[in-house]
Amino acid sequence: MIKDYLLAPGPTPVPARVLLAMANPLIHHRTPQFSAIFADARAGLKKLYQTEQDVLMLAASGTGAMESAVTNCFSAGDEVIVVNAGKFGERWLKLCKAFELEPIEIRCEWGEAVAVEQVERALREHPKARGVFLQASETSTTAVHPVEQIAALTRRSEALLVVDGITAVGVYDLPMDRWGVDVLVTGSQKALMLPPGLAFIALGERAWARQKESRQRRFYFDLARERDNQAKNTTAWTPAISLVIGLREALAMLEEEGLQNAFARQARQAEATRAAAAALGLKLVAPKNPSPASTGIYTPEKVEGGKMVAYLRDKMRVTFAGGQDHLKGKIVRIAHLGYVGTFDTIVAIAALEMALQRFGHELELGRGVGAAQRVLSAALPK
Amino acid sequence: MIKDYLLAPGPTPVPARVLLAMANPLIHHRTPQFSAIFADARAGLKKLYQTEQDVLMLAASGTGAMESAVTNCFSAGDEVIVVNAGKFGERWLKLCKAFELEPIEIRCEWGEAVAVEQVERALREHPKARGVFLQASETSTTAVHPVEQIAALTRRSEALLVVDGITAVGVYDLPMDRWGVDVLVTGSQKALMLPPGLAFIALGERAWARQKESRQRRFYFDLARERDNQAKNTTAWTPAISLVIGLREALAMLEEEGLQNAFARQARQAEATRAAAAALGLKLVAPKNPSPASTGIYTPEKVEGGKMVAYLRDKMRVTFAGGQDHLKGKIVRIAHLGYVGTFDTIVAIAALEMALQRFGHELELGRGVGAAQRVLSAALPK
Repeated sequence: MIKDYLLAPGPTPVPARVLLAMANPLIHHRTPQFSAIFADARAGLKKLYQTEQDVLMLAASGTGAMESAVTNCFSAGDEVIVVNAGKFGERWLKLCKAFELEPIEIRCEWGEAVAVEQVERALREHPKARGVFLQASETSTTAVHPVEQIAALTRRSEALLVVDGITAVGVYDLPMDRWGVDVLVTGSQKALMLPPGLAFIALGERAWARQKESRQRRFYFDLARERDNQAKNTTAWTPAISLVIGLREALAMLEEEGLQNAFARQARQAEATRAAAAALGLKLVAPKNPSPASTGIYTPEKVEGGKMVAYLRDKMRVTFAGGQDHLKGKIVRIAHLGYVGTFDTIVAIAALEMALQRFGHELELGRGVGAAQRVLSAALPK
Repeated sequence: MIKDYLLAPGPTPVPARVLLAMANPLIHHRTPQFSAIFADARAGLKKLYQTEQDVLMLAASGTGAMESAVTNCFSAGDEVIVVNAGKFGERWLKLCKAFELEPIEIRCEWGEAVAVEQVERALREHPKARGVFLQASETSTTAVHPVEQIAALTRRSEALLVVDGITAVGVYDLPMDRWGVDVLVTGSQKALMLPPGLAFIALGERAWARQKESRQRRFYFDLARERDNQAKNTTAWTPAISLVIGLREALAMLEEEGLQNAFARQARQAEATRAAAAALGLKLVAPKNPSPASTGIYTPEKVEGGKMVAYLRDKMRVTFAGGQDHLKGKIVRIAHLGYVGTFDTIVAIAALEMALQRFGHELELGRGVGAAQRVLSAALPK
């Protein structure tokens, strides 16, 4: 019997309600019917981003929206500061290089967050820097960066703060306008509980001003053109229709749950998972600044982590993420973001325990689950 | 966030693969297309029942097939022996009375199985008895009756053995022909992993001979008429089309898993659940003869069982069954039958632990889960 459990930091499980909405026969996108759905989704996205700006929908994966941030708000030759603390920090770096910006790299150990002082110093040493790029939550290391504090610096500088919020928006409180984030990006297959294929980007006023100055060549990801179209509840190019229909449903679900409740739920799964890891004597990848989106846990020395993750996926049918690059084979990442609740976390910990034991690590089955249960029990409804 | 877990002994979870098959647009039932599907389902049902006989499909719930057993193979005034060891034994009794048979009741304590000697004595004391009615697995008490041994008795008598296999067929090995069961009934919403609405019945040769003699009035449940139609891959009345389409898919899944593997899987969930109950110091309803279909567990004295089951269902979103009649409020029944695997059992035990604690019962969270994990780990794939 095959029964699959998807507990990786994206794609995340899609609720039946969203799947059913998307399973309806396609409608045409140049119609009042689609525009009505699009308008609902736009309104929901503004609440999600906590912004007065338009949140633009792109038929792309998150990397597409990241690219659009680079090509719309910057020009070749621009000096920018890039926080590189993992695979996705590296992606900002690659994007900046591809479009011939001049990145100044702040390199951090994987699992560490950038220190606010590092950014402060970089801004001081590079007064012409036009931007600071970073992740809110670095998915590859499961660490969070101090976006709010860094925004306090960039607001007082000429540098735009460009935040990859792909595993942060909808996971924890990240109020774009209040914090003064200039550009905020996310994707559909994370907290938004959708399949991949939609990406989102919002620009603050400083970023829109910069957009006018940018001399990059661009077409598909021309955000000004998108803004003009989306203000009229349509899109420049063919939208990912069924994903937009699913998005409306997913946003409605988040609205019903309450955004703060959803944040608390996801944080609780992360806390329970960390408690389980501690009870099992396992080390966290990002102990000082753990993300509520997912938890990276080092596999014990004796355990072949890559094989264990493959075994979990192929034989036990529980999909976690392993490590990337130099963490490959050394860690397992358990996700908490999106449509994930108490019993997903219980399954995750129970499966991890059983797999660790099977791969030669001695432990007491149920010990990690018990630790997770204690955290989760505290939040049982009345 | 709402995420539901269905762990009651029917309806049981329906796999996505079956749901998707049923979600296809309807086809007409008087067509070669439907007949081809029907033929596949018929062939699969014979393997499931382990019989050379036709297994007839009825658009009804299990009780409909039970009624058809009474009305096709018996006549008013027939003396029959009915094993009444729970809610469903009682149903046989009610059916026999409704059609004016003369039932001789063998009453057992709820949670007990009938002793073979009790049936033997009843057959001896009532040599004119035309039938013995019982459950293979009594869903209300989660006990199994010794069908094989009783069949050895009825084969040597004039009494037909009429077995309600609603929570047994597909759950554990119940070879109809080999054991000599004369009538075997089941329903779709149990091991067959379908929604309710289809019932199944097969008659052995002795039962078909009896069918010719029966003087009961009947129409919808005329099994001879159904047999003639279904031999031609059609039905006397309108069939439950989408359920038959789902049935073909569910039978294909069972075939792929292997029937013996499916039996072992369900037995393992039951064993793990009993191990968890023992580790938590909880008493079983049927300790001597537990069913692999589901496990009844007494809730501790101090715990209000009815409220706890409602809390699990409405707040924790984990649906178990409570007790019926005089067991109401006193037990919880956790299901293992159908599309249920390792992590369903983990969720069940973790949820039970958390609910028990919340309702004032002291326990060590994770202890039951650990005991279940030990049983389930032993069967991890290579």
